Amino acid sequence: MPVKKGKFKKYVYCFAGGKAEGDASMKMILGGKGANLAEMTNLGLSIPPGFTISAEVCKIYYELGKKWPKGLEKQINDNLKKIEKVTKKKFGDFENPLLLSVRSGAAVSMPGMMDTVLNIGLNPDSLNRLIEKTDNERFAWDSYRRFIQMFGDVVMGVPHFAFENELKKVKDKYGKQLDIELNYEELIEVVKNYKKIYERFTKEKFPEKPKEQLYKAISAVLESWNTDRAIKYREINNIKGLVGTGVNVQTMVYGNMGESSGTGVCFTRDPANGENKLHGEFLINAQGEDVVAGIRTPIPIDELNKLLPKNYKELQRIRKILENNYRDMQDLEFTIEEGKLYILQTRTGKRTGASAVKIAIDMVKQRLITKNEALMRITDDDLDQILHPQFDTKELKNKKPLTRGLPASPGAAVGQMVFNAEDAEKWADLGKKVILCRRETSPEDVAGMHKAVGILTSVGGMTSHAAVVARGWGKCCVSGAGEIDIDAEKKEMKVNGKIFSEGDILSINGSTGYVYQGEIKTVSSSLSPEFKMIMKWSDNLRKLKVRTNADSPEDTLRAVQLGAEGIGLCRTEHMFFAESRLSIFRRLILFAYESRRIESVLQRLSSDSERIALEKEYSKVNKEYKKALSELLPLQKRDFRGIFKTLKGMPATIRLLDPPLHEFLPKNLQEQEELAEVTNISLDRIQHIISDLHELNPMLGHRGCRLGITYPEISDIQVRAIIEAAIEVKRKTRKNVLPEIMIPLVGHYKELQLSRERAEIVISKVFTEKKVKKGYINYKIGTMIEIPRAAVTADEVAEFADFFSFGTNDLTQMGAGFSRDDAGKFLDEYIELGIYDKDPFQSLDIEGIGKLISIAIELGRKKKNKLKIGVCGEHGGDPKSIYFFNKAGLDYVSCSPLRVPIAILASAQAVLIQKSIVSKKKKAGKKK
Amino acid sequence: MPVKKGKFKKYVYCFAGGKAEGDASMKMILGGKGANLAEMTNLGLSIPPGFTISAEVCKIYYELGKKWPKGLEKQINDNLKKIEKVTKKKFGDFENPLLLSVRSGAAVSMPGMMDTVLNIGLNPDSLNRLIEKTDNERFAWDSYRRFIQMFGDVVMGVPHFAFENELKKVKDKYGKQLDIELNYEELIEVVKNYKKIYERFTKEKFPEKPKEQLYKAISAVLESWNTDRAIKYREINNIKGLVGTGVNVQTMVYGNMGESSGTGVCFTRDPANGENKLHGEFLINAQGEDVVAGIRTPIPIDELNKLLPKNYKELQRIRKILENNYRDMQDLEFTIEEGKLYILQTRTGKRTGASAVKIAIDMVKQRLITKNEALMRITDDDLDQILHPQFDTKELKNKKPLTRGLPASPGAAVGQMVFNAEDAEKWADLGKKVILCRRETSPEDVAGMHKAVGILTSVGGMTSHAAVVARGWGKCCVSGAGEIDIDAEKKEMKVNGKIFSEGDILSINGSTGYVYQGEIKTVSSSLSPEFKMIMKWSDNLRKLKVRTNADSPEDTLRAVQLGAEGIGLCRTEHMFFAESRLSIFRRLILFAYESRRIESVLQRLSSDSERIALEKEYSKVNKEYKKALSELLPLQKRDFRGIFKTLKGMPATIRLLDPPLHEFLPKNLQEQEELAEVTNISLDRIQHIISDLHELNPMLGHRGCRLGITYPEISDIQVRAIIEAAIEVKRKTRKNVLPEIMIPLVGHYKELQLSRERAEIVISKVFTEKKVKKGYINYKIGTMIEIPRAAVTADEVAEFADFFSFGTNDLTQMGAGFSRDDAGKFLDEYIELGIYDKDPFQSLDIEGIGKLISIAIELGRKKKNKLKIGVCGEHGGDPKSIYFFNKAGLDYVSCSPLRVPIAILASAQAVLIQKSIVSKKKKAGKKK
Repeated sequence: MPVKKGKFKKYVYCFAGGKAEGDASMKMILGGKGANLAEMTNLGLSIPPGFTISAEVCKIYYELGKKWPKGLEKQINDNLKKIEKVTKKKFGDFENPLLLSVRSGAAVSMPGMMDTVLNIGLNPDSLNRLIEKTDNERFAWDSYRRFIQMFGDVVMGVPHFAFENELKKVKDKYGKQLDIELNYEELIEVVKNYKKIYERFTKEKFPEKPKEQLYKAISAVLESWNTDRAIKYREINNIKGLVGTGVNVQTMVYGNMGESSGTGVCFTRDPANGENKLHGEFLINAQGEDVVAGIRTPIPIDELNKLLPKNYKELQRIRKILENNYRDMQDLEFTIEEGKLYILQTRTGKRTGASAVKIAIDMVKQRLITKNEALMRITDDDLDQILHPQFDTKELKNKKPLTRGLPASPGAAVGQMVFNAEDAEKWADLGKKVILCRRETSPEDVAGMHKAVGILTSVGGMTSHAAVVARGWGKCCVSGAGEIDIDAEKKEMKVNGKIFSEGDILSINGSTGYVYQGEIKTVSSSLSPEFKMIMKWSDNLRKLKVRTNADSPEDTLRAVQLGAEGIGLCRTEHMFFAESRLSIFRRLILFAYESRRIESVLQRLSSDSERIALEKEYSKVNKEYKKALSELLPLQKRDFRGIFKTLKGMPATIRLLDPPLHEFLPKNLQEQEELAEVTNISLDRIQHIISDLHELNPMLGHRGCRLGITYPEISDIQVRAIIEAAIEVKRKTRKNVLPEIMIPLVGHYKELQLSRERAEIVISKVFTEKKVKKGYINYKIGTMIEIPRAAVTADEVAEFADFFSFGTNDLTQMGAGFSRDDAGKFLDEYIELGIYDKDPFQSLDIEGIGKLISIAIELGRKKKNKLKIGVCGEHGGDPKSIYFFNKAGLDYVSCSPLRVPIAILASAQAVLIQKSIVSKKKKAGKKK
Repeated sequence: MPVKKGKFKKYVYCFAGGKAEGDASMKMILGGKGANLAEMTNLGLSIPPGFTISAEVCKIYYELGKKWPKGLEKQINDNLKKIEKVTKKKFGDFENPLLLSVRSGAAVSMPGMMDTVLNIGLNPDSLNRLIEKTDNERFAWDSYRRFIQMFGDVVMGVPHFAFENELKKVKDKYGKQLDIELNYEELIEVVKNYKKIYERFTKEKFPEKPKEQLYKAISAVLESWNTDRAIKYREINNIKGLVGTGVNVQTMVYGNMGESSGTGVCFTRDPANGENKLHGEFLINAQGEDVVAGIRTPIPIDELNKLLPKNYKELQRIRKILENNYRDMQDLEFTIEEGKLYILQTRTGKRTGASAVKIAIDMVKQRLITKNEALMRITDDDLDQILHPQFDTKELKNKKPLTRGLPASPGAAVGQMVFNAEDAEKWADLGKKVILCRRETSPEDVAGMHKAVGILTSVGGMTSHAAVVARGWGKCCVSGAGEIDIDAEKKEMKVNGKIFSEGDILSINGSTGYVYQGEIKTVSSSLSPEFKMIMKWSDNLRKLKVRTNADSPEDTLRAVQLGAEGIGLCRTEHMFFAESRLSIFRRLILFAYESRRIESVLQRLSSDSERIALEKEYSKVNKEYKKALSELLPLQKRDFRGIFKTLKGMPATIRLLDPPLHEFLPKNLQEQEELAEVTNISLDRIQHIISDLHELNPMLGHRGCRLGITYPEISDIQVRAIIEAAIEVKRKTRKNVLPEIMIPLVGHYKELQLSRERAEIVISKVFTEKKVKKGYINYKIGTMIEIPRAAVTADEVAEFADFFSFGTNDLTQMGAGFSRDDAGKFLDEYIELGIYDKDPFQSLDIEGIGKLISIAIELGRKKKNKLKIGVCGEHGGDPKSIYFFNKAGLDYVSCSPLRVPIAILASAQAVLIQKSIVSKKKKAGKKK
């Protein structure tokens, strides 16, 4: 649409006098905050009048090299006039000055990440008018002080600490503890000194012209879009596709104008547990940032009913209006200015997983939303959170808590204490679990917070930075534990006379707020009826089966309880790592190695005398090899019996030994010496074998079916253990046993063919020995598709496979050519640069690895049209990947036990998404 | 075809009395030897009558669990009768006994690998008759002795050494040196003792019944097909698809019946240089195995003209008949029995590469074969051999040879002496070059011979085992160096008073037979006119362009001289390994690492004081980084200038830095300390960086374009060097310069997009700086396709690529999921088991990796139909792979300089093969 000459695009949208130019659907243009201010204005709520500068301006601002587009200034001034008319005040006026706030607001909420400037328009002239009007000198001077500080910090980049130090100096001078204790004369001194600081840092006078203040503040908000911390936040939260932030310019209202004023934040339902009642907190005689920044600990919202009952009732009314309008739980900010309630902002409220599930179900019951909408609203993070471990109640009984804070984000966490975000990152990168302990957190801490298992703060409420961010991630957090004294410099925490240092272990309960010294055992949480309802609805919708990756009866049971329909991946090597077995397995490896070596030498020898000597050695070594194998057999069998029993007739895909043998051999001398003693093989020889088995690229080495081909005896014993266990369990329980033997790392169909032939021989031997008919155990033999070669020759492979299971981890590693262990060195940068949208090990790279999968499915089903196909990489528990797998026509996904409910839900969501795509396409087709 | 009742399949084929049931085309049925005996019989040559048992019998024999098929015995006896009729002798007769030989013979010649039994039918009775008939007691008893030994060894597995020890004992007893010095009475003693040995080892009497002897011998030949050494030979020579060996039963003729008897081996042309004249050697009064086994040193064939001129003339006549019939050079065995010449076998003669080329060209001139046939006859090994290094003639002038043997297989070799095959294997596996020194070689030495760079024997002629096998491989060999005395036990060699031990360095010249002490420099050989003719004919046929992989002007020049049409892969990292540069590059890496680290910390920091301190450090480090880059620039430029000049207008594909940075950093402490001194970075810090850069799977690590993306400054400097050098060379030489910048290891199109955008910026900057127009240098930017993901998303990648070059090494590693370094642990076994036909790193895995390549070509050309596509992995020099690349529609292949002629020839062969496939298909189509 060509823009008419002399006319510019619409950059500014007004909301004032009960009418707004925008509405809630315009988030991409106005940002979330702006769109909702417009919507609420239209809903007739009491909103301080103002206007929103569209997010597009932000984009143009950067395109023009940080300049305003032409026409913007005029549109701003036109809208200012509208507001002046509605408020009957005048911006820059002596008589009745209009004071403004400038706030950022993008389409996606980024709490605490963007900048705000309040009290714009204050200068010595308007200050006097404010004093006159409010008859409150302290309030006016405090507002001016805050304005200078915010403007200096946010707009001009004057270091925050410079102002803070100054404030502290004045407080110390007059023996005051809290800011609020300063009287107006002392505040005048602060203002004077603040201005000096401002001049020192900026080399210019503090601007007194309101227009200059406003324009600079707007530009500062635009600038805040691309600060390092904003970029980092978007990165961590994977926020993409936004053009910029909107800028909201709004009439100031004051919550700090005395005891009939106040400010607060509340949720239309409980964000922690979903209870259907107003939930929140407020401060009397305070500015909004006092609540959000968590500096004063606020009062629960219920108490407002006692203090300002009229406002409380109105809030309850607004709560209903908003929920009916938005059909979702809202998070709103309000200010009461001398008894009049204003809503400053509303947005969809962040909530815990348990709360998300409860709210969804309740809203279906209220007929606010449909079942399908409810299912689509619940995320994997929600369920993940519900499934988070909690402290063992038995252990908890005997534990006296150290102290208590606010239950800011549920779950239990145990870790070592660190006192700054950088340490949290460092320690976590070393594989340690850490609890980040801070007086309060701030946006620059987010990276460290992300790496911690839990967060503990001594100051700040349920809506403090720490609480909001932790809840978003489903990370355990206790905030505002006021008895705690944290010295970040000394890396020490004092509480009730006890001193804790860096590295000490702490257990925190984000569901209760209790903090404990030392480690407490955690257990999985129990599941709510609402959770079960979601699972039931999902089961009715989904097409994909959901299995689990489990190697023990315990894990299997847990997964089955969570809805798993069988095992999709049982890794047999995990069974060898138990200490008692490891020593057998190590012996086995050494003798297997020696056997194979002698065999190959024997093939080459022709001298009979040499041959005879070597054959003797061979028979000795081979006997030891066989012995180790036979020791392992009953142990493996026991594992499989336990799993088969737990499955009660559900299928179990069991993968034969996969990792390279050197992973099992000891690295330290002492264990090598022990092994030498047990095996009677010299230490030298053992070290030689270890070094010979070493691999330059173990990921691409001698593992998977390659082991079974060079050491077929090991596969034999595993197959035997599976089938013998299956027969025994079927006989005993009279329930079906469905073992699916999975040959790993097949790249060439002949590998599968050979492995399968060998396995079939063992199986029919076992059938004969156990005197059962050929079909007694309905076993399957299949393979993982995890090597690109196998994917592109899947038709050949399918001929010898009863099933495929995509090993998406390895397929990603080999397909994309980077190892999971080493990719860390560049993958972050790759995601930053947008080469990959997300870590391809977390969420399937659908365009690349997905293509290999599609090729394999097409070729495999061309050969066998009913070929059973599943996935058992970690992507089997990732919703986006599951949407792809559903579309690609897989039969099942398999994931870790705790991800099973997530996979169940995602499978249902996949069906809904698929339907909506199909119906959209149909509609598009009809239009044509 | 159903076999009639009572009738069996034809197992036995007769050749006798000038008529044969088979012919040369029946190799697969009769084996090479049998088919040629039949053919020669039909040609009217004098062939000892006999019959051939078909190779299918060998297959059935194993299928039946080592039993003869029904009907075979009857067919043998029927044919025996025919021979008895023709020879007028009778098998097992007292009066006129027929004596037989039994020899193996498969479709592919396996010299020395299969077993032979002579003199079957000898027993005390026929022995007496033989004495009477020949009036030569010594001959008869010697024949009997040989028979017992051969039968015992070959048929019954009596250890060879047992007989040899016995023979030596008798010789010692009578003070005799040579076998031939033993008189008949002494031989009678040997026979007696031989029979005792036989009985001791076999626990049975030596069979005297001729039929039993024959049947057992036939079975023994069938058994010899699957001995370890035969299997090993087929493995090494990659012989596949044969069903078994034929068995040739033939009337005995004797070359050891006095001075008018003899035996020899000859070639219809010179197998060393291709000269068109009879070439060979013989022994008077000797059995055939005396020549082949190399125990006595034979006389050149020319001398036969003096000794037995009639027979010599007949040989010359036969030579022409055979060449006209077979249209190729023949290798034949003959025996003269009391003045009558018999041809025992003929087959296509093995030859050196030079000889192969000359013979092919000569035969075209003689109109025996067509040009295309000539081209198809020459193999990569032939050319490889021609291109083998020779000794530097200047150095050679000043060198006095130690001794001289026969020029058994051409080329020059320098290596350390080892004295047995096992040591040869071991040392070679440790990366050492070895010369295998043996008195004579035998089939069990083949594995060790294969690993040696050269072979030296003290006994044996041009057709000894060592000579034949070495020539087949194109490996340098000097045989029959009689002055040398080798003590394998002591691992010592004495020659002219000098003693050499294991590990001493020797230089041997297989083209002249000279042996030198110490190391002599080798240079490449000069090329014959015939070679150039083959290249010219190939050029006229081929469609594929042939480029070379070269990193220096020298290599480039050599390749261009051999016909290369540009550079397909210039690896820039090789340029950094030179000592002077390595130290700059190491500095560069350290400062690059530190720069990047500080950058990332700075992004996270918010405290201004910390930031200011760090920014200072950053600017210091970054300055050093820039400094190292600027030091590298002129050096890189010089490299490229040299290469561009040499190419004279031909294109050069230059790959940006590929290997992971840790490969360049020092592993030993001293060098690390030096680096610490130079860089002023602490040793601790350097070691930290080295350990941080360490990778678990370097193949799948931080390398290729990933480096260019995280350290773009390094790519910038490389691109700058390329373009600046191109401009400078173009200005100076006024010849075109065609640089093709290749971005390695692209997996995702965005990697290429980003890298390309950055390169284009640098390039246009250079154009501006150098004041040239935009199109002055016609550069291209493309990528390697070496990651499976890139192959399956090649359409996306093609959008940003001017060309593709398949990196088939990495594509094989990632596509098949095994690293070249680690696959050795199982790949041999995989090839043995037939999972892969050949080492997929040597010859492209067409079914698997070839499929990825086909997918990439299809997708790439779908996006850009004229996309230039080449290959630069080592497969670019492998004929079979080249046939595939030709068919797949590639534009060019690139290979190492010495493989260029091979690639040129193979590209022409590819066209011929393609044509023949097409014409076959057309014919098949017409028939329908």
